[in-house]
Amino acid sequence: MNDSGKVILNITISLDGFIAGPNASPSNPLGDEGIRLHDWLFKAKTDLDVQVIQDLVETSGAVIVGGRTYHDAIDTAWGGTTPFLVPAIVVTKNTPSEKKDGFIFVAEGIEEALKRAKLIAAHKNIWVMGGATVIQQFLAKRLFDELHIDIAPVMFMKGKKLFEGLGDIKIELQNVAVVQTPQATHLKFRRS
Amino acid sequence: MNDSGKVILNITISLDGFIAGPNASPSNPLGDEGIRLHDWLFKAKTDLDVQVIQDLVETSGAVIVGGRTYHDAIDTAWGGTTPFLVPAIVVTKNTPSEKKDGFIFVAEGIEEALKRAKLIAAHKNIWVMGGATVIQQFLAKRLFDELHIDIAPVMFMKGKKLFEGLGDIKIELQNVAVVQTPQATHLKFRRS
Repeated sequence: MNDSGKVILNITISLDGFIAGPNASPSNPLGDEGIRLHDWLFKAKTDLDVQVIQDLVETSGAVIVGGRTYHDAIDTAWGGTTPFLVPAIVVTKNTPSEKKDGFIFVAEGIEEALKRAKLIAAHKNIWVMGGATVIQQFLAKRLFDELHIDIAPVMFMKGKKLFEGLGDIKIELQNVAVVQTPQATHLKFRRS
Repeated sequence: MNDSGKVILNITISLDGFIAGPNASPSNPLGDEGIRLHDWLFKAKTDLDVQVIQDLVETSGAVIVGGRTYHDAIDTAWGGTTPFLVPAIVVTKNTPSEKKDGFIFVAEGIEEALKRAKLIAAHKNIWVMGGATVIQQFLAKRLFDELHIDIAPVMFMKGKKLFEGLGDIKIELQNVAVVQTPQATHLKFRRS
């Protein structure tokens, strides 16, 4: 199998399957305590965590990100500049009026975003980084090669779940790898 | 920390969080294709899988099992004999009329079952092996020291979820260990 040119879905969930804590809103995009999902990326990161994300960054030739994640998190957090090393395709009907360096806005949905991303990424991977709605769409249409799920050792009990509303589809997975750090268990699955 | 005398909750779920496939019923207790949750225990077990379950078996002085699991799976599969090396406390209002060697039936709920199990297990662990309802009750009352979740690389999309209906409780977890085999990722968490 060629190890390049894969579509990789990657998102962090709580052990009980939520992608954000309770009461998520545009001003609180990760919900109450939802920031703990990303402790492995920020305040409690270890060398192993850094390696996990670096592997993804270095092998990716394009990023796909959902509109809500872009508007609520990325655009505000980085003040309009891109945190990515490669072009990011934003799936959104809400295209900003001004140009945003590093970002390409696609209103036609995930298939069109994927087509654009493939042209840009060439033989490198495409990293679909969420949010949940975009990941769910890629899952439901089985438009992926690998699914990387980072499980944070927290339970939220309520909020938005990643694995719901996927309908009557069939997804077959293979275990590929796992790495555990204090704030995450990083699981990789391959679609078979 | 004393490594004995722990209450360990252990159950296998699909990646999307289900403890059985769709259409589970008394005659189909694991639901459609639900048997795949247990491939790591049976048809596809590896030395590592065997070690995971053996560690649990050898450190446990008592088992707690839910009524549905007992009646639908254990009693029928083993024809009334016990598959456990130690006494199993069954939490059920449906006590069999005849005595069952190796089984103790408790109708008063999980606290009473736990009290009985502790007397029997003494300094050894108590292994709460499911089903989902019993695990949910132990979670909701935070009556556990460790949570061992085995994730099978399957997605069911519908069925019964483990992590739901837990209400407004707060559970804090620490990552303890992870082991991956072809048919399971075995995660251990400690309640903190």
